[in-house]
Amino acid sequence: MLTMDKVNDARRVLEGVVRHTDIQKAHRFTNDCLLFFKPENLQKTGSFKVRGAAYKIAKLSEKEREKGVIACSAGNHAQGVALAAMKNNIKSIICLPAGAPISKIEATKSYGAEVCLVPGVYDDAYKKALELRDEFGYTFVHPFDDEDVIAGQATIAMEALDELPDIEAVIVPIGGGGLISGVAYAVKNVNPKIKVYGVQAESAPSMLNSVRDGKIETLSSVNTIADGIAVKTPGENTFRLVNEYVDDIVTISEKEICSAILALVERQKMIAEGAGAVSVAAAMFGKLPIQGKKVLSIISGGNIDVTNLSSVLKRGLMNAGRITSLTIELMDKPGQLERVVDIISKSGANIKEIRHNRAANTDNIYSCYLNVEMETRDYEHGKEIVANLEKLNIKVIHNND
Amino acid sequence: MLTMDKVNDARRVLEGVVRHTDIQKAHRFTNDCLLFFKPENLQKTGSFKVRGAAYKIAKLSEKEREKGVIACSAGNHAQGVALAAMKNNIKSIICLPAGAPISKIEATKSYGAEVCLVPGVYDDAYKKALELRDEFGYTFVHPFDDEDVIAGQATIAMEALDELPDIEAVIVPIGGGGLISGVAYAVKNVNPKIKVYGVQAESAPSMLNSVRDGKIETLSSVNTIADGIAVKTPGENTFRLVNEYVDDIVTISEKEICSAILALVERQKMIAEGAGAVSVAAAMFGKLPIQGKKVLSIISGGNIDVTNLSSVLKRGLMNAGRITSLTIELMDKPGQLERVVDIISKSGANIKEIRHNRAANTDNIYSCYLNVEMETRDYEHGKEIVANLEKLNIKVIHNND
Repeated sequence: MLTMDKVNDARRVLEGVVRHTDIQKAHRFTNDCLLFFKPENLQKTGSFKVRGAAYKIAKLSEKEREKGVIACSAGNHAQGVALAAMKNNIKSIICLPAGAPISKIEATKSYGAEVCLVPGVYDDAYKKALELRDEFGYTFVHPFDDEDVIAGQATIAMEALDELPDIEAVIVPIGGGGLISGVAYAVKNVNPKIKVYGVQAESAPSMLNSVRDGKIETLSSVNTIADGIAVKTPGENTFRLVNEYVDDIVTISEKEICSAILALVERQKMIAEGAGAVSVAAAMFGKLPIQGKKVLSIISGGNIDVTNLSSVLKRGLMNAGRITSLTIELMDKPGQLERVVDIISKSGANIKEIRHNRAANTDNIYSCYLNVEMETRDYEHGKEIVANLEKLNIKVIHNND
Repeated sequence: MLTMDKVNDARRVLEGVVRHTDIQKAHRFTNDCLLFFKPENLQKTGSFKVRGAAYKIAKLSEKEREKGVIACSAGNHAQGVALAAMKNNIKSIICLPAGAPISKIEATKSYGAEVCLVPGVYDDAYKKALELRDEFGYTFVHPFDDEDVIAGQATIAMEALDELPDIEAVIVPIGGGGLISGVAYAVKNVNPKIKVYGVQAESAPSMLNSVRDGKIETLSSVNTIADGIAVKTPGENTFRLVNEYVDDIVTISEKEICSAILALVERQKMIAEGAGAVSVAAAMFGKLPIQGKKVLSIISGGNIDVTNLSSVLKRGLMNAGRITSLTIELMDKPGQLERVVDIISKSGANIKEIRHNRAANTDNIYSCYLNVEMETRDYEHGKEIVANLEKLNIKVIHNND
């Protein structure tokens, strides 16, 4: 059973094994509340997951340790289990769907795990892990629905309460619910007045739906940049704990996630992954009744794929109107491009990219499409440029805002 | 004159004005030495420049404060002067070349400065600033060649020596030389045994050349991703101080800068600008005799343009062979693309982008170009794929490594 004794034991066990991540003051994110971050993106392996995994592994019997552990994950849980097993000198096997990104596979291997690539999707890898467990007697380390794992994650709250005892609200990402279960349980046991809010991606609201309907529900699909919290079904333990200890759950759009990741890069000089940024987005975009309060957002991880990061940052810039992308229909004759470039340049925007597409299937065979991407000050600046183009009878077909 | 009294005075004056940036342990950057970072990218305004500017402004007379200050910069110095002036309730004017990035102009304005856009390049903006100084009696705040400014930057060393007194070497980026002059002066006065190394971009080695030749020299052009240290001429004070106190200066290639920025993102979850990353690159790429030593790299700033960040990270991935980009010549007939995709997929690489260019001006009019960009494990993996393609008589024209 989850008890405060177990949480305190986890804290003792994890000392020196995981990093104490120092709370940071948020720089210019919101005027609504006094915002702080608990940066678990700076944790070993780049996410909080190593806490739960390391405590689970520390509690294994001698016999279980001899056999080793197995887990199924393409992400942070894999790296957490691998590192925790390596530190305990025990064997770990991680089952991954065969199409997992190379960078994740390499990272998992680098922490000493044996990687088992399973053809198919996550569910296939999960089945394979359970088969191997049954065949070889490995201990299966669940990514969230396990009370030792949850007690490990609860140590985040204990550290934070030591550092900021007068905190009034804590905002926590929710995927399967392991992190928020541990945090909410610990926070409410220490001080029931502190609010605990959960955040899910709009397109993966499995815990929100389940809590709303009073029973565990499964989503048919989940697809979000916040892949760390793209979970179809909450756990049984986590569902019960969230029901009992969490004050409210809100959701965040993909656009808002991108904007939060961009803000963390520009203002905090910090890399967060999508799942890690939802708790920041909830504070930035006024989703919660935290006006005037002292608030802690837990940034759960920072393992964003670098090739995805570029498109995330670009979306963040577009959302703020700092990149404006226009598709313009031009008559296919000399001097047309010059007119457009002249108007844009006079308006003070910086053109970053131009594509002139002569073969486009326009209604008028004498016209062609021009795509212009430019740096603008804000949304209004972009609109002003469109208005200036239209004043000269230049047809703007599509404006990416 | 620069004295330790002045440095200590600067430290008192700046307390509560600038942030004390906590030293971080480097995670998996090098096995050569025990590496730490002084993260001035986490400083107010995103760079160390605010230290020198704030101390300079604090030392102004009442009469000078009434008139206000002027500076010329498209970057970190602008924001440092603007913030320091705002905190002191005095007026600041920043001259910028008219083509400066919108994000830099907006950031400077956001700290309360009056921005004066000057047609032309940096030198034109500089001349304009001196004209305005003469006309209106503003105090000109030099970005580096000023002993108050240098004393302000020296506070970085004093903070670092408090936190890590047993450090054996400090690595510092050099542009005009203000940062390293302050740091080297303070470090050598506290403990002359500590080595101080300077780092410049390969394409902007103005201080290195000047020290080598024993006189101040001016480069005709400087062009590097490390724009914060793209300085054509060292200062007189800084030239003298670097000669006296700095042990050695090394240079870093553009590729190495990109790799260091990528490593900071992935391993430290931290954003550094090019200039800020050169001191990290020097440790990563074995440029210095620091084997087995306890070493501090000063990360001078984090204000990298977000749109540039994407291409920097991509170059970093390419340098490590984690992205492989091939140009392949194909016969223009059905089934050719499938063969290539099949080989790549069987080799375990993930294709990120394909462009099939039928109009290419190949030697053979029946052939066309295929550009394939894919995620690979490392350099060897990319070479293996090229070999597999060539084994089937598929011609690889160009391999981006």
